[in-house]
Amino acid sequence: MTGTAPAPFTADDYRARMERAARAAADAGLAGLLVAPGPDLVWLTGYAPTAETERLTLLVLAPGQDPVLVVPALEAPDAAKAAGAPGLTLRDWTDGKDPYAATAALLDATGRFGISDNAWAMHLLALQRALPGTTYASLTDALPMLRAVKDAAELELLAAAGAAADATFEEIRKVPFGGRHESDVAADLADLLRRFGHSQVDFTIVASGPNGANPHHEVGDRVIERGDMVVLDFGGLKDGYGSDTSRTVHVGEPTDEERRVHDLVREAQEAGFRAVRPGVACQEVDRAARAVIADAGYGEYFIHRTGHGIGVTTHEPPYMIEGEEQPLVPGMCFSVEPGVYLPGRFGVRIEDIVTVTEDGGRRLNDTTRDMVIVD
Amino acid sequence: MTGTAPAPFTADDYRARMERAARAAADAGLAGLLVAPGPDLVWLTGYAPTAETERLTLLVLAPGQDPVLVVPALEAPDAAKAAGAPGLTLRDWTDGKDPYAATAALLDATGRFGISDNAWAMHLLALQRALPGTTYASLTDALPMLRAVKDAAELELLAAAGAAADATFEEIRKVPFGGRHESDVAADLADLLRRFGHSQVDFTIVASGPNGANPHHEVGDRVIERGDMVVLDFGGLKDGYGSDTSRTVHVGEPTDEERRVHDLVREAQEAGFRAVRPGVACQEVDRAARAVIADAGYGEYFIHRTGHGIGVTTHEPPYMIEGEEQPLVPGMCFSVEPGVYLPGRFGVRIEDIVTVTEDGGRRLNDTTRDMVIVD
Repeated sequence: MTGTAPAPFTADDYRARMERAARAAADAGLAGLLVAPGPDLVWLTGYAPTAETERLTLLVLAPGQDPVLVVPALEAPDAAKAAGAPGLTLRDWTDGKDPYAATAALLDATGRFGISDNAWAMHLLALQRALPGTTYASLTDALPMLRAVKDAAELELLAAAGAAADATFEEIRKVPFGGRHESDVAADLADLLRRFGHSQVDFTIVASGPNGANPHHEVGDRVIERGDMVVLDFGGLKDGYGSDTSRTVHVGEPTDEERRVHDLVREAQEAGFRAVRPGVACQEVDRAARAVIADAGYGEYFIHRTGHGIGVTTHEPPYMIEGEEQPLVPGMCFSVEPGVYLPGRFGVRIEDIVTVTEDGGRRLNDTTRDMVIVD
Repeated sequence: MTGTAPAPFTADDYRARMERAARAAADAGLAGLLVAPGPDLVWLTGYAPTAETERLTLLVLAPGQDPVLVVPALEAPDAAKAAGAPGLTLRDWTDGKDPYAATAALLDATGRFGISDNAWAMHLLALQRALPGTTYASLTDALPMLRAVKDAAELELLAAAGAAADATFEEIRKVPFGGRHESDVAADLADLLRRFGHSQVDFTIVASGPNGANPHHEVGDRVIERGDMVVLDFGGLKDGYGSDTSRTVHVGEPTDEERRVHDLVREAQEAGFRAVRPGVACQEVDRAARAVIADAGYGEYFIHRTGHGIGVTTHEPPYMIEGEEQPLVPGMCFSVEPGVYLPGRFGVRIEDIVTVTEDGGRRLNDTTRDMVIVD
């Protein structure tokens, strides 16, 4: 994980987020939140250490206490420069000292704590050992929607990231596909994302022909051929906020079946999008998209959930998946990305980021969802 | 974490590593090892998922059982292509199913397990909930030396990565420093590392003047001035193995004090290197380097441990630190990198990767340790 602190937020913004998080923790019956380097820490403090290592860095947010960041002495000067640092007390520790004892001293010895999903197991085990009376829940279990509802400034950054991804698609559709390696087109995608302002490229999937039938095929040495469907799925971070869009293009004229499957996925994506409005459960977005594909007899070939949230990461709650009963709230942002994957043959996926408005949804990607023919 | 499977290793190499790890687990009284995406998984299987996510991927190694990789269905096709896959059974799971129940079914319900340091807390908590009778130790606590002793092929890759870092230093010393931003020189370092074969750049520290007094200062917008000391510390992965070297250069002629501190650190680095031989405790390497600096009256300004291991990561056990009694073994590879940091003024660090031989140590970096004057 690398990340840049989102530029437009002030120390007061971060202070407000930390207060909101501490209140949410109290409301959930938690004695506090333990926040490890990664997206939660970036969102709460603007601080992203150079690297995640075996050296403990941990933000302790406890209701009624001032936020404390336990940080290796070596990294304290960098932490002190974070935009959220004025709202924090830094407690630094030196190599050879026990950072878990120092952290334990800040915690209720019999409390239940929320801890970042991606906190390292070694740190959690050491805390469990230092304070055997404590219990823990992952932040996503305890407070799944902590970062889910975006404020106006965040929405603006997500929209700008989406626009940059759209600009990337408008350029990539002009490049030659046939006869080139998937990896060459992927390199073009990465260059374009950077050119349009991304500081971090998270994925540049170029899955041609049969590779398209593996939804997580990243990129390979396959030479793209005339007659191939090609799934493009790309995104990353621009000014600290994520983009993620997919379009499926065709090299030359498609067959009737290819066109039919493409248009089916487009309809499913539209149905998922139309299901978005406040109060609707996340799973309804999945159901709406899935029903279109199932009704056409392709249900068994749609082998993943319909979407995931996006914010300071490209992959976070809320998830658009059967069983997720969380109601949608204005300001939530997530992907709507149904697909059909025909093993050994080809795949189609169409994906936009959508944000929940007061009365429906608004797309943050808006390149054509018709099938684009490339050279 | 992104990573490329080291090219030269075969399915048999990975099978042998998994067997060795399972035996080591049994010898340590563990019921098995639970290996998450990251360096442990790369080393044991050659598999690095595109991204580490909330979707569980976990290698289960239990003595007397065949290795099983629990993997999201979406990612199973990629996992099946890993060089170590022939030695594994893939157990895939689909969105909406419970991967922890599937994993629990593979485990001794009252066993003690080693789990990757960097496994996500959310996965560990879910396993603890699924099997309340199990206990866990982080892999570094349970089997700290699992990846520490490198075989001949690994040493060759580490030497090649070191040579590429040295080539980078030989080029960077020719570029202009004075009047440029630290970030410009850092960009040059990254370009050079890639030009000399690195697929991943982990850090390019350029810490000029007072910034050099913060050992973890990465890079900033400071304009480097004539008269500055500049700490350069850079590395990454080449063909899946790490490089990491530091040199401190001076823009124009140094003062007597600057030269004295530089030469003191050079002596300390030499003393640390000379302490390396089989059977010596890691802490002795730290003590040898530290004594030189302490004897000269600068002890309070050497504020970090002397070194860390390197392999498929640029930061791993063994650690050269007071209290680490692990004896050195031929094939271990680690940094020897003492430093002196004078707050508000300047810093000096000199770092080589060293491997333990049958009768001493061998440096994998060998650019001059004399002070280099740059423009």
